[in-house]
Amino acid sequence: MGRWEPNAHGRLATAALELYNERGYEQTTVAEIAGRAGLTERTFFRHYADKREVLFAGSGELQELFVRAVADAPESATPIDALAAGLDAVSETFADLREYARRRQNVITANPELKERELIKLASISAALADTLRRRGVAESAASLTAEAGVAVFKVGFERWIVAAEERDMAQLMRESLDELKAVIVGGRGVW
Amino acid sequence: MGRWEPNAHGRLATAALELYNERGYEQTTVAEIAGRAGLTERTFFRHYADKREVLFAGSGELQELFVRAVADAPESATPIDALAAGLDAVSETFADLREYARRRQNVITANPELKERELIKLASISAALADTLRRRGVAESAASLTAEAGVAVFKVGFERWIVAAEERDMAQLMRESLDELKAVIVGGRGVW
Repeated sequence: MGRWEPNAHGRLATAALELYNERGYEQTTVAEIAGRAGLTERTFFRHYADKREVLFAGSGELQELFVRAVADAPESATPIDALAAGLDAVSETFADLREYARRRQNVITANPELKERELIKLASISAALADTLRRRGVAESAASLTAEAGVAVFKVGFERWIVAAEERDMAQLMRESLDELKAVIVGGRGVW
Repeated sequence: MGRWEPNAHGRLATAALELYNERGYEQTTVAEIAGRAGLTERTFFRHYADKREVLFAGSGELQELFVRAVADAPESATPIDALAAGLDAVSETFADLREYARRRQNVITANPELKERELIKLASISAALADTLRRRGVAESAASLTAEAGVAVFKVGFERWIVAAEERDMAQLMRESLDELKAVIVGGRGVW
């Protein structure tokens, strides 16, 4: 990346999200994205494999961050506490991305193929978390269950966080979702 | 379906699974499946849209069964108890299908595209369960969390059930998985 393209990666992502929201994901071309960002198609392809990847380039980083925080939790932490540490780390990184996340979610929700891709990315995060928990000494199926629960809490907390009027921070909403899962799982009738 | 094709649906499924396990899913053609079943390609296409659908035709029934049992749980049942009723109903139906399920899982696991399809089917079950719980009066996010937890328990219980040496019945393994999830979620250290 040369000096003449400052923050090309971010500019392309912003331009793509604008266009996907304005005219729809299918109707947007790479040429239009590059044009809106004031860059060339060639530059686009130096940063992203295709127009779909613009939406999912961050998923790998999210997974790494989540997994690293779980791996680095104190040795004495229970699986669910290690997972909560992961949710905290993720929340901290997302803090400034709420508006971006809202616009991205609009695009994903409107397109079945993108929704499938999102599911697959979340399943990949779940598998990586389960592996990490196993490396912490958690038994096979307990690791899988904790990881699946963690991704469920992440999904629900994330959905709350991007609601239009919502202003509470992500960490708080993740904690609330985790508490709600606990309440549901132990069978308390308070949630009815 | 004429009288000259008794149980064509099942014969085709059995033949397909045999071939997928023997030579791999990609390498198997519809003509070969029909031939192994002693039927024509034309008959195959009366029963299944393509060779992938042989593996997923049962997923819709599974979803219906699971959802119906959750919907029909006593009004007084908590969300998690309604879910447990769904797992019981599913287990009863699967009882005689363990060997079939093992062979199907071998095929799915060996093929990334099929694994993705399986994830999408499970996500569809989760969404349907969440809708059903909402119709029972469960709050929005509690319904999503319960449904995701239910699918996680189903996945882990199912994986245990198809382990080669496993002889305990599915209902028992589902209950154990649910209990394990409870133990993990409340943070007990017994699972370490």
